[in-house]
Amino acid sequence: MNDDASGLDRCPISRALSVVGNRSVLLIMREAYYGTTRFDDFARRVGIAESIAAARLRDLVDAGLLDRRPYQEPGQRTRYEYVLTEAGSDLLPVVLALGSWGARHRPLAQPVPPRFRHSTCGAEVGVEVRCANGHEVPVDELTLDMPSRASRVGV
Amino acid sequence: MNDDASGLDRCPISRALSVVGNRSVLLIMREAYYGTTRFDDFARRVGIAESIAAARLRDLVDAGLLDRRPYQEPGQRTRYEYVLTEAGSDLLPVVLALGSWGARHRPLAQPVPPRFRHSTCGAEVGVEVRCANGHEVPVDELTLDMPSRASRVGV
Repeated sequence: MNDDASGLDRCPISRALSVVGNRSVLLIMREAYYGTTRFDDFARRVGIAESIAAARLRDLVDAGLLDRRPYQEPGQRTRYEYVLTEAGSDLLPVVLALGSWGARHRPLAQPVPPRFRHSTCGAEVGVEVRCANGHEVPVDELTLDMPSRASRVGV
Repeated sequence: MNDDASGLDRCPISRALSVVGNRSVLLIMREAYYGTTRFDDFARRVGIAESIAAARLRDLVDAGLLDRRPYQEPGQRTRYEYVLTEAGSDLLPVVLALGSWGARHRPLAQPVPPRFRHSTCGAEVGVEVRCANGHEVPVDELTLDMPSRASRVGV
């Protein structure tokens, strides 16, 4: 229900979660960022049954985050690959932010090197909370613009 | 399994999703950022049954994202409120990034003003993908540091 008139789902966070609010969908998106395009690779690398991978990939294509494109190798039947769309690429900050949280709050005994790097300088990539004026915003400088429930966010 | 030796869950994204990989958990965290602390308010504002709210809040307390604290109003029995911990506050970029995606890719017919603002300057708050050297990183300048599956991320 992406319609004001419905009075439902006025929250963009909730609308996003209607599309990507489950673990296997977000792990499939992780794989897409890693460069995975083929059905078998998605299922195996995410570690889910093929039936579930098929359903989730279909959901992601229907939702416009992945594009399903035919390809054919010599002497083989036509197969399909799954390629990130702009809407799919735009979800990257969600997946990066999950990775930052996991690395910090669920660390491994033996740390693993960061996986995402900036191609032009080699530095580790992460997400930052910033305002439109370019300030980095710590959690205690965040305010909520909602008349009935104004509050300050923080620990 | 937060242990290298297990060979499981070496991916921090996957480890994070073991904690917050479902819709109602992330909507409860949204409410916590909005300043909600009381059980009844979480259940009502997220729009879930009380039994589910109770289970998810317990999960979030067990996982260390919310702290359960007793409080008592005059003449009433002791109740509990749920307050963000540091680990809970650190999940904010995930929720903000979901909101940015939802606002852009699932827009309402009638746009709603942004909800999170920077308290010191009033500007809208969002997440940015940046490297440790401070460069803003577009999706086509992201590379994957994983020997067996190196690839370039992008549309």
